[in-house]
Amino acid sequence: MPAPSRYLSERHASVRGRFDELEIDAFLVTHPANIFYLSNHAGTAGILVLARDGVHLLADFRYMESVQRLQASAGACPGLKAWPVPASYDEALASCLAASGWARVGFEAAHLSVARYEWLLKTIESRSLPLALQATEGVVERPRTVKDDYELDAIRTAAARLTEVAAEGIAAVRAGVTERHVAAALEAGLRRAGFDRIAFDTIVASGPHAALPHYRAGDRRLERGDLVVLDFGGVMDGYCCDLTRTVTVGPPAPEATRIYEAVRDAQAAAIAAVRPGIPASDVDAAARAVLDARGLGQAFGHGTGHGLGLEVHEDPRVGRPRPNVPTAVLQPGMVFTIEPGAYVTGFGGVRIEDDVVVTERGCDVLTAVPSDLQIR
Amino acid sequence: MPAPSRYLSERHASVRGRFDELEIDAFLVTHPANIFYLSNHAGTAGILVLARDGVHLLADFRYMESVQRLQASAGACPGLKAWPVPASYDEALASCLAASGWARVGFEAAHLSVARYEWLLKTIESRSLPLALQATEGVVERPRTVKDDYELDAIRTAAARLTEVAAEGIAAVRAGVTERHVAAALEAGLRRAGFDRIAFDTIVASGPHAALPHYRAGDRRLERGDLVVLDFGGVMDGYCCDLTRTVTVGPPAPEATRIYEAVRDAQAAAIAAVRPGIPASDVDAAARAVLDARGLGQAFGHGTGHGLGLEVHEDPRVGRPRPNVPTAVLQPGMVFTIEPGAYVTGFGGVRIEDDVVVTERGCDVLTAVPSDLQIR
Repeated sequence: MPAPSRYLSERHASVRGRFDELEIDAFLVTHPANIFYLSNHAGTAGILVLARDGVHLLADFRYMESVQRLQASAGACPGLKAWPVPASYDEALASCLAASGWARVGFEAAHLSVARYEWLLKTIESRSLPLALQATEGVVERPRTVKDDYELDAIRTAAARLTEVAAEGIAAVRAGVTERHVAAALEAGLRRAGFDRIAFDTIVASGPHAALPHYRAGDRRLERGDLVVLDFGGVMDGYCCDLTRTVTVGPPAPEATRIYEAVRDAQAAAIAAVRPGIPASDVDAAARAVLDARGLGQAFGHGTGHGLGLEVHEDPRVGRPRPNVPTAVLQPGMVFTIEPGAYVTGFGGVRIEDDVVVTERGCDVLTAVPSDLQIR
Repeated sequence: MPAPSRYLSERHASVRGRFDELEIDAFLVTHPANIFYLSNHAGTAGILVLARDGVHLLADFRYMESVQRLQASAGACPGLKAWPVPASYDEALASCLAASGWARVGFEAAHLSVARYEWLLKTIESRSLPLALQATEGVVERPRTVKDDYELDAIRTAAARLTEVAAEGIAAVRAGVTERHVAAALEAGLRRAGFDRIAFDTIVASGPHAALPHYRAGDRRLERGDLVVLDFGGVMDGYCCDLTRTVTVGPPAPEATRIYEAVRDAQAAAIAAVRPGIPASDVDAAARAVLDARGLGQAFGHGTGHGLGLEVHEDPRVGRPRPNVPTAVLQPGMVFTIEPGAYVTGFGGVRIEDDVVVTERGCDVLTAVPSDLQIR
C-alpha cells in the first residue's frame, strides 16, 4: 500500500517550507527515490516539479494508466497535474517550465547531469524564458532521513519478514552446495515473504571469498571449515531492509571464532552506543574501538553502517568523520544498518549486520536473528 | 569469465583514437557500465581515467582485493594503475588530476552530476591546476553499440539460457496462482540457469494488469481467460538479455487472439526488416505499420526495442524518429530487443519480445521461444 495522501501533504509542506530560504518558487526533482517520496509515482523515468500550488509530474505513455490508478487510490498525490511526455523528457520539461510562470526553480545538483543542465540553460536562453535555475543539495534527502509513521511501519514489517528469510538462507548452507545455490534459496525466500524485489545483489561469500566485502555469489562449492557471509536485502512497498549473518560450515577454526566474536562484540558496542543527539560517527567509533582492541582495526576497512529507506544506501552515513563533510546528528526515526566486519585476505571474513531505528532513548533493533555463530 | 585483456586494449584504442578530435589528453569515466567496459572492474563505486599511457582506476577499500585478483587474471586491464580511495572519491580524483600533468580532460556530460562538476571546477581553480574539463557525449556508448566477439559470445550464451528459463516460467502459469508466484518461478529459473542477477524487476502482469506496460508482479491471482505478460531478463558475465511472452490462462477470448496475432505479426515484420545500413526507426515503422493496419496503432504507445549489452536499456533506440535526435544506423554486431505490444485499458495487453543481433545480411534471433499463443 502506498503512503496515504496526508503523508505526501506533510512531505510537500516540508520541502515548500524551504522555498523562501532557497529563494525559489518551484523545485525540480529528478532523483527517482525523491520523486516516489513526494508523489508515490514509482516509474524508472519521470520528472517532478513541486510548486507552491501543485505538483507537476512528467511521465511517458508507459506510466499514464498507473498514474491514473494512483490518483484514484488512498495514496493519491495531492495537487497532482500529470504532463504526458510524448517523446523527450527534456522537451516536456521545457514546455512545463515555459507554461509555468516560475521565476526561480531549484534543482537537485547531485541528481541532474551536466548534459541535461546545459541543455536546459540553452533552451531557457533560446526561448527567452524569464527563469533562473538554482542548485540545491539534499532538500528531499534530509527530511527523508527521519522516517514518518507510515515509513516506520513499512520498514518494521519488512525487517520482520527479512528476519524469517534469514533462517531459510542459513538452512541452505551446507558443505558441497554452491554459493549460487544459497543465493537462490535466499532470493526465493524473499519472494515468498512478499518482497517486491531484492534490494541489491545477494552476497554469498564463502571461504577466501568472505575476505571480499563486495563479492556477490559464484560457483564455488562450500567446504567444511568455511566462513560464509550471507548479505541480502529486499524491498517491500518501496522500503529497503538489509541483513548479514556469517555462519561456518562444520566446526570453526579457533581463528574464525576469535574474529567472529570480535565482530559480534563490535556490533553490540555500536548498537549500545546509538541514542539521539550524538554524531553518527560515534556509533562507528564504538565498533572500531572493539576491533582495534582485538588487533583487527586494519581488517575493518569500511564504515559501520548506512541509512536505509527508499534507497538501500542513503543518509545518515555511519562512518569515520570526514574532512569538510558534516556528520549527521542522530534523531529519533532515523533508520540505518550496523554492520561491522573484519576481512583477512586468504583466510576469510566476518560481517554481522542488523537494521536499527533511533528511539527517544536509544534504538530498536528491527531485524532479530540470533547473532551467535551458527555452525552448519 | 571477464573479457580477455586484448579486448580491453582494443576498447582503449577506440576511445584514445578520438582524443585528438575531442582535443583531450585524458578521459574521465564516471558511468559504471563504461568503467566495466574499459577495465573489467565491476564495483558500484569507482572512477576511471583513461589516459594516453595508462588507465587510472580509483576504488575504495571494498574493491582493492578484487582489483588485485582481476589484475592477476586473463582479464587484467592493460596499463592499470589503482588509486586507493581512503575517504572521498572527489578528493581522490582531485589528487589524481593534480598528479597527472593532463591539460584537457574529457568527461561524460550525461554521467557527471552538476554537483560533482561544480566541485571539480572549484577545486581546479583553488589549487591552481593547469587543467580544463571538456564535456563529451557518447564516447564509450557509441563503440559499445557494436559488440565485439567476446561480447557476442557472452550475449548468445545468455540468450540461450534465457530461452530455457522462459519454458519454466510459462509452466508456472495456471489459474489460482499469484503473479508473485510466477515471478518467483522465473527468478529461481534465472538463478538455476547461471544468471548472476535479474536484469530488471520481473514483470508478471495478468488480466487488467497486462494493460500496464511497466506493471511488475503483485498479489493478483490468475484467472481463466487472463492474458498474462511475462517479461524477464538476467545478467550473465555482465551482459543483459531480455525476453517477453504473453500466454493465456484457459482458452483465449476472440479479441485476445486477434490482439495477440497482430502483435506477433508486427514482431515478425520488424524482425524481417532488420538489416545493416537502415535507420533503427525503420524497424519500428515495420512493427507500427502492422499494428496500425489492425486498428491497434494507438494501443502501441512505446518504442519497438532498445539496445542490450552491459545495460538493459542502451543504444540503439528502436523507436519513432525524434526531432533533433539522430537515429542510429544499424550495423552488424548491434544487439537489441524487438518487442511490440498492444495495451487495451480494462481488457489487458500483449507484448512479445526477442533479442536480435544484426548480421551482414539481416539478423539472428538470439532468444528462441515459439511465438504462437500458448494456452495454460
